[in-house]
Amino acid sequence: MASIKPLSDRVLVRPVEAEEKTSSGIIIPDTAKEKPQRGTVVEAGPGKVENGTKIDMSVKKGDEILYGKYSGTEVTLDGEEYLIMRESDILGIVS
Amino acid sequence: MASIKPLSDRVLVRPVEAEEKTSSGIIIPDTAKEKPQRGTVVEAGPGKVENGTKIDMSVKKGDEILYGKYSGTEVTLDGEEYLIMRESDILGIVS
Amino acid sequence: MASIKPLSDRVLVRPVEAEEKTSSGIIIPDTAKEKPQRGTVVEAGPGKVENGTKIDMSVKKGDEILYGKYSGTEVTLDGEEYLIMRESDILGIVS
Amino acid sequence: MASIKPLSDRVLVRPVEAEEKTSSGIIIPDTAKEKPQRGTVVEAGPGKVENGTKIDMSVKKGDEILYGKYSGTEVTLDGEEYLIMRESDILGIVS
Amino acid sequence: MASIKPLSDRVLVRPVEAEEKTSSGIIIPDTAKEKPQRGTVVEAGPGKVENGTKIDMSVKKGDEILYGKYSGTEVTLDGEEYLIMRESDILGIVS
Amino acid sequence: MASIKPLSDRVLVRPVEAEEKTSSGIIIPDTAKEKPQRGTVVEAGPGKVENGTKIDMSVKKGDEILYGKYSGTEVTLDGEEYLIMRESDILGIVS
Amino acid sequence: MASIKPLSDRVLVRPVEAEEKTSSGIIIPDTAKEKPQRGTVVEAGPGKVENGTKIDMSVKKGDEILYGKYSGTEVTLDGEEYLIMRESDILGIVS
Repeated sequence: MASIKPLSDRVLVRPVEAEEKTSSGIIIPDTAKEKPQRGTVVEAGPGKVENGTKIDMSVKKGDEILYGKYSGTEVTLDGEEYLIMRESDILGIVS
Repeated sequence: MASIKPLSDRVLVRPVEAEEKTSSGIIIPDTAKEKPQRGTVVEAGPGKVENGTKIDMSVKKGDEILYGKYSGTEVTLDGEEYLIMRESDILGIVS
Repeated sequence: MASIKPLSDRVLVRPVEAEEKTSSGIIIPDTAKEKPQRGTVVEAGPGKVENGTKIDMSVKKGDEILYGKYSGTEVTLDGEEYLIMRESDILGIVS
Repeated sequence: MASIKPLSDRVLVRPVEAEEKTSSGIIIPDTAKEKPQRGTVVEAGPGKVENGTKIDMSVKKGDEILYGKYSGTEVTLDGEEYLIMRESDILGIVS
Repeated sequence: MASIKPLSDRVLVRPVEAEEKTSSGIIIPDTAKEKPQRGTVVEAGPGKVENGTKIDMSVKKGDEILYGKYSGTEVTLDGEEYLIMRESDILGIVS
Repeated sequence: MASIKPLSDRVLVRPVEAEEKTSSGIIIPDTAKEKPQRGTVVEAGPGKVENGTKIDMSVKKGDEILYGKYSGTEVTLDGEEYLIMRESDILGIVS
Repeated sequence: MASIKPLSDRVLVRPVEAEEKTSSGIIIPDTAKEKPQRGTVVEAGPGKVENGTKIDMSVKKGDEILYGKYSGTEVTLDGEEYLIMRESDILGIVS
C-alpha cells in the first residue's frame, strides 16, 4: 500500500463516519453549528517549526481524535478515504 | 464512559442551558448581541505552547464559567451534549 | 450574589445608560459613528499574558470608564445587566 | 469639568471643524478619498506597551494634529464633542 | 531545456493528472471539498528565511507529493505544464 | 506657511499630476491596474518604531518618488494639495 | 534616461509579453488560474529590513524571472512599460 508522510504539523486520519440518525432512527439535518467527527491518526508529521525550533506533536499514530466537520483535505489512498489536517484542527483525544 | 482529553488550550464544557424565558414567562428572542452562557469545565487541556513555552491554563476541572453564545464546537459523548472551546472563548469564572 | 472573575485582560462593567435624548427632549437616532458609553469597573481580570510575561491592567475596580457602543458581551447576574469586555475596548478613564 | 485620561496610545482630541465650502462658497461633497481633519490634543495616554516595553507617545497635550476623516470615536463631555483615537490614526503635527 | 530555480520555500512540481472517473467509468463532479493531487518535485527552492535564519526544506527533488487542488501557479516550460507552489501547500510525501 | 511634521514612517508629498492623455492627445481611462504617480517628498517622519528600535527612513526631503494611485491621504495646506503616506506605500526613488 | 531605485525588497522588471496564442494560432482566453509571466530584473532594491536586520535579496539585476499575472504595479518610464513588485511576488529564476 502507498503510504503518506504528512509534512509539518499535519496528520493523516482514517475517519469514523458520524452517525446521521438518532437511536430512534430520526435523521439529523446539518445545523449551523459544525459537528465534530471521530477518526484514528494513521500517520503524524514531525511537528511545526517555529522560529527555528520544532514543536513536538501532541498526537501520535493510533490516537483516536475528535475534529470539526469541515477540517482537513480528503485524500484517496488505494480506494480508501482519508483526511489530512493540521494538529490545530484536532479538538481532543478520545480515551 | 468515553472521556476526552482536549488539546492545547481547549476545555471540555458541560453547558447549563440558558433560560429563554423571563420570570414572568415571556420568551426572549435572540438579539444581535450574543448572550453568554454558563457551563462547567469537565476537562482542561495542558495549555497552549507559544514560542516553545507552555502557557498555563487559567481554568481547571470543576470551574463554572461564562462564555459567548456561539463559542465552541458541540460534541456528543454517551448521549450527552458537551462543548469544546479554547480558553480565549471563556469570559470569566463564576464564584 | 454570584460574582464573576474575568479571565485575562477582561473587565466586568456595570454600564451607565447613555442618554438618548438631548436636553430639549429630542430623541437622538443612532448614527454610523459609534457612540461611547460610560460604566464602572466592577471586577478586573489579572491581565493578559504575552510571551510568558503578564501585562498589568491599566484599569482597576471602581474606575469609571468610557467604551465604544458595541463593545463587550452582555451578562445578566442576579437580574442586573453587566458587560464583559477586554481592556483594549476601553477608551479612557473618567476622573 | 469631567476629564478623560485616555488608555494606552490613545489621545483625546478637540476637533477643528473642516470647512465644507470652498472660498467662493461652493459646497464640497464627500469623495471616495478620506479628507483629513485638524484638532488639538487635549489629553494623551501613557503610550502602548509592546512585549513589556512602553513605547513613548509622539504627540503631547496642546499639539495641533491632522487625522483621517473617519478616525476615532466621538465622545461628548459637558456638552462638547471630542474624539478619542489611537496615535496610529494621527497623520502629522501642524506647526 | 529552460530550467526554473524556485525562490524561497517554493517548489516546481510536475503534476500527475487526477482521475476524474471512478473505476466503473462514472465521471466525478467537483465538490465543495478540495481534492488533493499528486506530483513530483522537479526543483526545490533554498528554503524560507525567518528572522534572518534559513528554514530547511522538508521536500527535495524527486519526492512524490500530495497537494490541494487549487494550490500553486501554473507555469508552461517547453510546452509542458508545471506548478510552482510554497512548501506550506504540500500536504505530505507519498512513499 | 503652516508646515506638517509627519508621524512615524509617514512622508508629506507634493504630487506631480499624472498625465491623463497620451502624447497624441487621447484620454486614457482608468484601468483595473493602479497607475503609479510621481511626487516630491516635502517632509519625512522620524521613522517607525519596531520593538523599541527606530527604523531609519529610506527616503528624505527632496527625493522624487513613485507611489501607487490610491496611496496616502489628501491634505490641503495653504490652498495646495499634498499627500501623507507611509514609506511602505512608496515604490521607488526616481533619479 | 530616468532611472528608478526600488525601495525595500522591490524590483523593477521589464516584462516579456506572454504569448496569448498557441503555436497553431489559437487565442488562449484568460482562465481563473493566474498565468505567470517572464521578465528581466532591471533594478533591485536593497532588501527588506526585519527587526532591524536587512534581509539580502535573492534576485539581482539581469535575472530573468517568473511572476504571477497580476503581480506588481505598472510604471511608465520614457515611454516604456515596467513593473515594480516585491521579491515575494517572484516565483523563480529562469536559467
